[in-house]
Amino acid sequence: MTTTTAGGGKPNLAVVGATGAVGGVMLSLLSARQDVWGEVRLIASPRSAGRTLTVRGRETTVVALDEEAFEGIDIAMFDVPDEVSAQWAPIAAAKGAIVIDNSGAFRMDDDVPLVVPEVNAAAARLRPRGIIANPNCTTLSMIVAIGALHSEFGLRELVVASYQAASGAGQAGIDALREQTARVAGTAVGEQAGDLRRVIGDTGPFPAPLALNAVPWAGSLKADGWSSEELKVRDESRKILGLPNLRVSATCVRIPVVTTHSLAVHAVFEREVSRQRAQEILAQAPGVVLYDDPEKGEFPTPNDVVGTDPTWVGRIRHSLDDPNALDLFLCGDNLRKGAALNTAQIAELVAAELTG
Amino acid sequence: MTTTTAGGGKPNLAVVGATGAVGGVMLSLLSARQDVWGEVRLIASPRSAGRTLTVRGRETTVVALDEEAFEGIDIAMFDVPDEVSAQWAPIAAAKGAIVIDNSGAFRMDDDVPLVVPEVNAAAARLRPRGIIANPNCTTLSMIVAIGALHSEFGLRELVVASYQAASGAGQAGIDALREQTARVAGTAVGEQAGDLRRVIGDTGPFPAPLALNAVPWAGSLKADGWSSEELKVRDESRKILGLPNLRVSATCVRIPVVTTHSLAVHAVFEREVSRQRAQEILAQAPGVVLYDDPEKGEFPTPNDVVGTDPTWVGRIRHSLDDPNALDLFLCGDNLRKGAALNTAQIAELVAAELTG
Repeated sequence: MTTTTAGGGKPNLAVVGATGAVGGVMLSLLSARQDVWGEVRLIASPRSAGRTLTVRGRETTVVALDEEAFEGIDIAMFDVPDEVSAQWAPIAAAKGAIVIDNSGAFRMDDDVPLVVPEVNAAAARLRPRGIIANPNCTTLSMIVAIGALHSEFGLRELVVASYQAASGAGQAGIDALREQTARVAGTAVGEQAGDLRRVIGDTGPFPAPLALNAVPWAGSLKADGWSSEELKVRDESRKILGLPNLRVSATCVRIPVVTTHSLAVHAVFEREVSRQRAQEILAQAPGVVLYDDPEKGEFPTPNDVVGTDPTWVGRIRHSLDDPNALDLFLCGDNLRKGAALNTAQIAELVAAELTG
Repeated sequence: MTTTTAGGGKPNLAVVGATGAVGGVMLSLLSARQDVWGEVRLIASPRSAGRTLTVRGRETTVVALDEEAFEGIDIAMFDVPDEVSAQWAPIAAAKGAIVIDNSGAFRMDDDVPLVVPEVNAAAARLRPRGIIANPNCTTLSMIVAIGALHSEFGLRELVVASYQAASGAGQAGIDALREQTARVAGTAVGEQAGDLRRVIGDTGPFPAPLALNAVPWAGSLKADGWSSEELKVRDESRKILGLPNLRVSATCVRIPVVTTHSLAVHAVFEREVSRQRAQEILAQAPGVVLYDDPEKGEFPTPNDVVGTDPTWVGRIRHSLDDPNALDLFLCGDNLRKGAALNTAQIAELVAAELTG
């Protein structure tokens, strides 16, 4: 399916979910990146309609999500919950917009490409439903780096443990961690079993206290004890890399960090690897920063990375017991590359296609 | 070598490092556990000598570490830095005490057994140097559970990612995390790259801010980018389990938790495994609590576990891509089983041997 912009000018963009945590990052990205857009229309739920937000230096009034909101729109980014995307993305597509959806509603649909521009940009051109999906933030935080290593060595297996930020649960997650941190600061809690539950009380969107704690749960319960977040890492990595039989085991854990997901990755390849060659590949990979000199104290931490675009990779080690395996630690801002930035990059790919 | 207690009565115990973080937990353990001891002598550095601490309900004056401090002592527990153990444990042993050392100084010495009573109690009887080593807290937090699974399925490989507590760096680590948490509470920091470094300043014993952050580093730098903590997990797991060729990859990460280490473990076995059988084994294993019902929100978190003796195991899943692999998440109090408790258990084993 090919869409052309009215009059051949710059395509018109809609941002659906403009008032959310990812939407906010999207507006600042749109204001900072090269401006390839005609109109930028901000869309949100009816209760947020009428608010004014700044994008590209202009005050812009948020309009309510309805069918008319997509009139004249060429590309629509959706940063909304799964059920809102499931209902409204097909409506936007039927109105002629190409949808870039950041929810989980369409990621595993065979007729919807799942795109990370640095890894599989060409996949964005084949979109029979008029919808392109943006991967889950946890997958996105690692896949650019892993994709570069896969190109060189051929990936066979991933064992992943995540250190996920509160903002993966949206603004409610950020607020809950901030409140919990204020509640425990200056006290001696955290050293008696269950005292955080007693002091913190309501744990917000998390199933246990997050401040001064770690919560080995993200998403919903799926078969055999797996969480939806863990299965997304497996399913989405396979789809993006085009490796339907890739072996993936992920354990997803939330930690008290505001924004930026970190992952410890054990990656096994078809061919023998070396630390030096892996460092060379990652130093040159687009969207990746190699930050790996522990002798100088150089390894990524979430707070050194938050607000930046790339995936930062450090702690690269060659397995001592498997010549084909690497261990590494990486950090990626889950609201930028993990959500808004990748969506913006896909939208720019499509914009170039429409106008080119 | 056989030592007998003077007069055949209860053996006399020395606690070296009684004023430290682990020492404090040791005194409360000695006060709570069955009292198998004659004298309990508290030993610390000369600058702490003369302080009074309570053990077994009695005010006890701390004496300075010197050769005479070991006169009449049958068993000496050492909770001190590596270099202090390296110097003083052989002196205590030469004075006739059996040393249970909690430092890293002797763990990989071929003539020093590395003991976890639930896993390899018999190893404690063969101690040609008169020294028994206590494993590193990170290894200890997982090895009781992994040992039980190994007995049933035969362990072949471990891929481990740790979520380590501040108190692994001693009282200075606890203090630093408390201070950093107070510094960031009620502020908006944590969302601009590097703002924690600016607000927190001195990061204490950690190489980067720990509050609202994750620090992928513990210990010192060894060859090829590995940290000493990561190599300890490999070397000590092999020695305790008696598997010199076990494949182990560990990535050790510090997170803002006061006490209790957590680990995400991917374990590959010689034989096919199942989730249900693994749960049955862990439900019966000594020193382990199975806490694994995500439908009811039951999985261990560090704060639910701190101050308790066992290793808590949850999130048990059978790998979707390898019939011989399990994934799980476990938590163990790094100051109790991870240090003081295991030392006390070894000392009690030896006390039973001496008096029995």
